[in-house]
Amino acid sequence: MRILTGIQPSGTLHIGNYFGAMKPAIELQARGEAYYFIADYHSMTSLTDAAQRRKNTLDVALDFLACGLDPKRSVFWRQSDIPEVCELMWILGTLTPMGLLERAHSYKDKTAKGISPNFGLFAYPVLMAADILLYDANLVPVGKDQRQHLEMTRDIAIKFNQSYGESSLVVPEAEIREEVATVPGLDGQKMSKSYGNTIDLFGDEKATKKKIMGIVMDSRTPAEPKPDAEKNLAIQLLKLVAPAEVSADFENRLRAGGMGYGDLKKALFEHYWNHFAEARARRAELSNNLDYVNQVLKDGAERARATASGVIARARKACGLA
Amino acid sequence: MRILTGIQPSGTLHIGNYFGAMKPAIELQARGEAYYFIADYHSMTSLTDAAQRRKNTLDVALDFLACGLDPKRSVFWRQSDIPEVCELMWILGTLTPMGLLERAHSYKDKTAKGISPNFGLFAYPVLMAADILLYDANLVPVGKDQRQHLEMTRDIAIKFNQSYGESSLVVPEAEIREEVATVPGLDGQKMSKSYGNTIDLFGDEKATKKKIMGIVMDSRTPAEPKPDAEKNLAIQLLKLVAPAEVSADFENRLRAGGMGYGDLKKALFEHYWNHFAEARARRAELSNNLDYVNQVLKDGAERARATASGVIARARKACGLA
Repeated sequence: MRILTGIQPSGTLHIGNYFGAMKPAIELQARGEAYYFIADYHSMTSLTDAAQRRKNTLDVALDFLACGLDPKRSVFWRQSDIPEVCELMWILGTLTPMGLLERAHSYKDKTAKGISPNFGLFAYPVLMAADILLYDANLVPVGKDQRQHLEMTRDIAIKFNQSYGESSLVVPEAEIREEVATVPGLDGQKMSKSYGNTIDLFGDEKATKKKIMGIVMDSRTPAEPKPDAEKNLAIQLLKLVAPAEVSADFENRLRAGGMGYGDLKKALFEHYWNHFAEARARRAELSNNLDYVNQVLKDGAERARATASGVIARARKACGLA
Repeated sequence: MRILTGIQPSGTLHIGNYFGAMKPAIELQARGEAYYFIADYHSMTSLTDAAQRRKNTLDVALDFLACGLDPKRSVFWRQSDIPEVCELMWILGTLTPMGLLERAHSYKDKTAKGISPNFGLFAYPVLMAADILLYDANLVPVGKDQRQHLEMTRDIAIKFNQSYGESSLVVPEAEIREEVATVPGLDGQKMSKSYGNTIDLFGDEKATKKKIMGIVMDSRTPAEPKPDAEKNLAIQLLKLVAPAEVSADFENRLRAGGMGYGDLKKALFEHYWNHFAEARARRAELSNNLDYVNQVLKDGAERARATASGVIARARKACGLA
């Protein structure tokens, strides 16, 4: 079973990204033949800074490798190293009804937010279909917001097969990821870069400590019992980064009364720092060995191409381009 | 100066296609470095029959080679042999405002005619921009209906250069082709496949003769003078295929009276047949030597790629994909 994941190179990651998407994605490598690509073509719909795109692409590669993506078990490449995906996009696009794309939530949402619509944004679901179909992916785990795009990919694949030959393209299955971990941000809202309430995955020690110690809580005295301890923001975050018995212990002490918020936040910082210590060290090591990282992506691209070249040849033949 | 022409592989050509577009296109090879491609990617927006696409592509290659396209002087290739054009299309598309495409006449006209709109049809001007910009074309001679698309290509190229680096893409000039020869069809309307009034460029002898002899004229007797001889359909067609003095002589005789329509139509057929005799023989010869034709296209693709690979590398570097 081949499982495909696209990774947005959207800059510095926070622990909301990590627990919400990155960790579940990396765990897929235990379940089948995992394919991961860094979606640098997609990044062009919102970013026109070439240096920033290069930096973001490299950063996200470092992040995933540091956090356990194993390039020996999995295939990990930069989307634009396999330009065949653009050719498949054109081919699929000629079978994609305009109405399908006009109904895409992602386009409607972004234009509603006032993002100046470019053709790339509109075309994004067609490139996404090509991303998936080019690699004969069987399974694509996605969040709920991507359910519609996966259905579009299936529709397009079925249309291609009907138009040009029954078994040309593999029709993938979606696996809708339940929100295993909605990570709250420093202000209690969902953690999101756009709310400015994030804890960076690989943030600077001093700055991150300051952020965590600055979390605003209520004005109850340390001695007071806190019957709503499970709703405490620091407790919620601690559950993500500390062993279960440790976070349970802190929760009980908070509930009983007698522990100050300062102690709790200090513990949160320490467990956060330790939880990512190994990944942080690994990332520092990789940052000093960029040749290795680039070689990993290059090797990944070669393996990805071995699949892609067969599929594109099959598709071209089916539709009379060769 | 590099001059680019795209050729639609839309099936059997008629003499309206020949005099209106093909002959002027072939003459370009005297004016500069002429690049010609057979637009098989574009054909996908309206044709989903793979075998027919292959046939049309080969047929139009035979037609152009038979009519004088010289692959030693010019570069002649199949669009889909250089898939880099799809990659450049994606790159350009991320800089193309949706509004620009929504205003494209070609899209509005086709949907108004009831052609079920697919994404490829909508995206067509972006692929056309890539077709032109991928080859650093300086000049693109087009009919009036393509004027808007050329302006879009220029806009997109300028936008790319502004966004990613001043001299990345060559901004092409359009050359709007005046309608040198509007060729009337057998019913007097403009010759067009959709009117069913065509004389095929390489039609069967007997069938074409029957078509020409069947042109319906007025009921005046042969003896009557015809003061409006220049408006006679057969005279108009004869001017295209016979030497000037021959057609002038026929026109004068018709004006004076004493010549029957049958004689005129017979002469028209003979001159039509002779005018294309050399090309017809050459086409028959090429049809028996498809290996040669395929080799011509393959060599052309190699020469086209020599240009394209430099441009795509420049564009990728400029926008941070490499």
